[in-house]
Amino acid sequence: MSTASLLVSSRDRTGIVAALSDLIFRQNGNIIDADQHSEKVNGMFFMRLVWDLEHYALDAAGTENALRQLAANFDNQMQWRLWYAPPPPRLAVLCSKTPHCLYDLLLREQMGELEGEIALIVSNHQSLRVAAAHFNKPFFYVPITAATRAAAEAEQLRLLREWRIDTVVLARYMQILSPRFIAEFPAEIINIHHSFLPAFIGADPYRQAKERGVKIIGATAHYVTTELDQGAIIEQDVTRVTHRDSVEDLTRKGRDLERQVLSRALRAHLQHRVLVYQNRTMVFS
Amino acid sequence: MSTASLLVSSRDRTGIVAALSDLIFRQNGNIIDADQHSEKVNGMFFMRLVWDLEHYALDAAGTENALRQLAANFDNQMQWRLWYAPPPPRLAVLCSKTPHCLYDLLLREQMGELEGEIALIVSNHQSLRVAAAHFNKPFFYVPITAATRAAAEAEQLRLLREWRIDTVVLARYMQILSPRFIAEFPAEIINIHHSFLPAFIGADPYRQAKERGVKIIGATAHYVTTELDQGAIIEQDVTRVTHRDSVEDLTRKGRDLERQVLSRALRAHLQHRVLVYQNRTMVFS
Amino acid sequence: MSTASLLVSSRDRTGIVAALSDLIFRQNGNIIDADQHSEKVNGMFFMRLVWDLEHYALDAAGTENALRQLAANFDNQMQWRLWYAPPPPRLAVLCSKTPHCLYDLLLREQMGELEGEIALIVSNHQSLRVAAAHFNKPFFYVPITAATRAAAEAEQLRLLREWRIDTVVLARYMQILSPRFIAEFPAEIINIHHSFLPAFIGADPYRQAKERGVKIIGATAHYVTTELDQGAIIEQDVTRVTHRDSVEDLTRKGRDLERQVLSRALRAHLQHRVLVYQNRTMVFS
Amino acid sequence: MSTASLLVSSRDRTGIVAALSDLIFRQNGNIIDADQHSEKVNGMFFMRLVWDLEHYALDAAGTENALRQLAANFDNQMQWRLWYAPPPPRLAVLCSKTPHCLYDLLLREQMGELEGEIALIVSNHQSLRVAAAHFNKPFFYVPITAATRAAAEAEQLRLLREWRIDTVVLARYMQILSPRFIAEFPAEIINIHHSFLPAFIGADPYRQAKERGVKIIGATAHYVTTELDQGAIIEQDVTRVTHRDSVEDLTRKGRDLERQVLSRALRAHLQHRVLVYQNRTMVFS
Repeated sequence: MSTASLLVSSRDRTGIVAALSDLIFRQNGNIIDADQHSEKVNGMFFMRLVWDLEHYALDAAGTENALRQLAANFDNQMQWRLWYAPPPPRLAVLCSKTPHCLYDLLLREQMGELEGEIALIVSNHQSLRVAAAHFNKPFFYVPITAATRAAAEAEQLRLLREWRIDTVVLARYMQILSPRFIAEFPAEIINIHHSFLPAFIGADPYRQAKERGVKIIGATAHYVTTELDQGAIIEQDVTRVTHRDSVEDLTRKGRDLERQVLSRALRAHLQHRVLVYQNRTMVFS
Repeated sequence: MSTASLLVSSRDRTGIVAALSDLIFRQNGNIIDADQHSEKVNGMFFMRLVWDLEHYALDAAGTENALRQLAANFDNQMQWRLWYAPPPPRLAVLCSKTPHCLYDLLLREQMGELEGEIALIVSNHQSLRVAAAHFNKPFFYVPITAATRAAAEAEQLRLLREWRIDTVVLARYMQILSPRFIAEFPAEIINIHHSFLPAFIGADPYRQAKERGVKIIGATAHYVTTELDQGAIIEQDVTRVTHRDSVEDLTRKGRDLERQVLSRALRAHLQHRVLVYQNRTMVFS
Repeated sequence: MSTASLLVSSRDRTGIVAALSDLIFRQNGNIIDADQHSEKVNGMFFMRLVWDLEHYALDAAGTENALRQLAANFDNQMQWRLWYAPPPPRLAVLCSKTPHCLYDLLLREQMGELEGEIALIVSNHQSLRVAAAHFNKPFFYVPITAATRAAAEAEQLRLLREWRIDTVVLARYMQILSPRFIAEFPAEIINIHHSFLPAFIGADPYRQAKERGVKIIGATAHYVTTELDQGAIIEQDVTRVTHRDSVEDLTRKGRDLERQVLSRALRAHLQHRVLVYQNRTMVFS
Repeated sequence: MSTASLLVSSRDRTGIVAALSDLIFRQNGNIIDADQHSEKVNGMFFMRLVWDLEHYALDAAGTENALRQLAANFDNQMQWRLWYAPPPPRLAVLCSKTPHCLYDLLLREQMGELEGEIALIVSNHQSLRVAAAHFNKPFFYVPITAATRAAAEAEQLRLLREWRIDTVVLARYMQILSPRFIAEFPAEIINIHHSFLPAFIGADPYRQAKERGVKIIGATAHYVTTELDQGAIIEQDVTRVTHRDSVEDLTRKGRDLERQVLSRALRAHLQHRVLVYQNRTMVFS
């Protein structure tokens, strides 16, 4: 089934739901998903609409045009993003040496649950080349040292453009991206941080967790912004630990969290269910 | 804010969302919550709509009338339930001797989180009269024996009618209700069963759980139907147990589950967020 | 059954388990619980032993004496704490206006699951006097202002001494205790903080959580130390939230966490299952 | 570090803990883990002991002999199982076509977290041969039809013997084993069932779950016995689902549970932390 997805943010105004539904209906689109959220504290309105394109009369440009007219009727207070019969998003996975998240994503794609296509894998180490080969994926080795960082990033960006990448996944990629890199993929770079943010920002969060003596550890998938571990959170999960768990045990238990949290966040993102507003996400179900 | 809530089930047909939104919009209602669910396997469509009545032009009868016309336009395949500026639902709590669920509900009402009003408490024991008195609630003692069961139930029903009860909560009430009782409150009697249904139906589920050696126990809130523990499930939750936990420990841990699961189910029900279809619930968020 | 409980910390040395078990066995004590933990990273050994006193030959003083001799055999590297046929610990609950934690503790005591006795309730407000009265508990109103803080704390301490209090529970008590107060009850004051520590230290953690856009909120029970929210963590738990949850919703959902986390931590403490070492707890199961 | 592990079941008798600790201590063994559990309802005693063999004076046969003498002192009411400097257990993984559990186990072994060695993979389909090859594991294709079932099982058993297999893992292996097969590996065959047992025994549990309308689904790892899905449960876990989740969504979400529950159960088993008594497990931590 070919569908269109629409994410809308607006000052809350009477009639927006009706206007949007009517726009789609008059063009013979059958709405198959509608979910709305109003925030009383700031008077904002958010909506996700998905409709079947089979009998729908407008093309993408026509729909954008209709949305512009509709926005004008509401004083141009409305922002939106439209995915019209979108092809599967193309992903680049950036990784270092740790294999678990990369294998997890590759296997999920193979089992048909990824909602996107892993187009290429880029790493600053050679060790995961075999994993890429096993799943028949292009693998590019771009080594990074303090001296070559700028050139390496330029090469990464060149690859991402060449392969027409939509979304970048940092699958336990242990390098910090420059603001310039981040600016090329706004709200399209997803990182998995191995703590329950905002606890234990930065390096070695499992060691920090052990030292603080927490009884639960977590993992957090978030959009990458220029401030370390401060981007909008997409998904989190946790698991229990006890005093018996060493830092190595936390690391092992954490790997299970990382895989699941990253893949759930990515799935929501690739299904165009995530709307970012003021560094917070709405994840429509 | 005075609102109307609408729950709709229908054969899925192009234009229903638009027609419903348009109906509300044309009467100047501002939609503050819209959530929709389509089931591909059976071609059904479900929706919840909530709108602000402040500037809305129709009264309850007018809205019902408009909905009937709308349904006619869709071949009368649509069922709905409308709550128009509903007063807080009036609850009766039926209990026996165990206090934890009753106290929990009374305290939640006092803290303003219940979304309904506990109008009366009926018990086949005197022991919880003090709890009722502490929270200034009418308490009726209706003893039940095998010989007096029918008369006792008649007295209970008389009380529920006299106090104009909308919803009946079985707060660890250890008696089985007759089909006649149940028929008077369709989808309005909520029970808390102390297992993760459908595991451990019937008596003494914590003992059953201990004997089977499960590693997790649960609790289930469901609508009461004439088949024991077979009604539509509204909410469930679980907690971990180990071999160290005796049946008494399971019972203690389970009490925490029972309170929370019952209150969450009740809250969803009282907010008119639960739609029952073919003995399954949709719980809109 | 009358029992003794022993918590031991020591440099790890061959023969300690055998020496401790042998000490108890030779005096005809039947060990009913033995749990041990060794930390490789710091070479420490921790153990909990519980034994039946029915046929046990030594009294408390004799056991302390035997432990001192045993410790001498291991170069006095061993610390321990012994509870010999301990009476139920006597608790003071300090609270302000919020009722849910206080009711929860009182009801748990009534249902026989508290493992301690709530001896008195102290509050800086009058509003929970009715709850205390309902459960027949002494209630003392000790108002606190900036000007009277020192005198108020002196009065609180006088009450705690007069009522021979072992353990102080801060049941959403919104005041900070002075170092002097804390020093009188080392590792015997338990606070419930309404966040997943170390995230959201300090005031208004639910608002902080909403602003950061976390997908999970938590609660943490910890021993009170002079550094705010930095004491050893005894228990934590979490629950999911979504973008739909307002700060009020987080507060409501959090109350369920607070009750459970506080009561589980308190139960572990009162059963002498919590051993503190370097600001981290071992909670034996 | 070379260690010995001992699991003991016995009628509860004063002095057993001391006798066991003393046996190890007198031979210069340093106990590094001791965990005990007494069941009041049946008067049974269970214990796990792990000790360092570095300075320990007895060999395996000598230790068995000492345990026999000790048992005689306690009226021969004691059963035990000893692993003395055990080599990593050798595993066979039986699978069909579904890849996720097999990849998960292979990757965990590669990351060093398995606590055993996957010695061979046996399947009734060819499709997972590539996964085995990628991880350099022997793969045997043993097709099964109704007509060849007995011969196929004989071939499987021959392979398991030839490769000196200790433990058999059914990684979503969709065939039922004969009693004869099961009898060769008592408490050494672990299955992952894709439901929260005892709910939804047998075929297609996710469909059953959807039809019953549960709000939580689960997975269960258990020892295989001759009664379908009735063996002792080792580990379980659950995840939330909603009315929006189709059977396919439950299947997808369930795969994450299956991986984790199977691997956690297997880890506990391979670390000799699981004691079975009357079809229930004690899983020592």
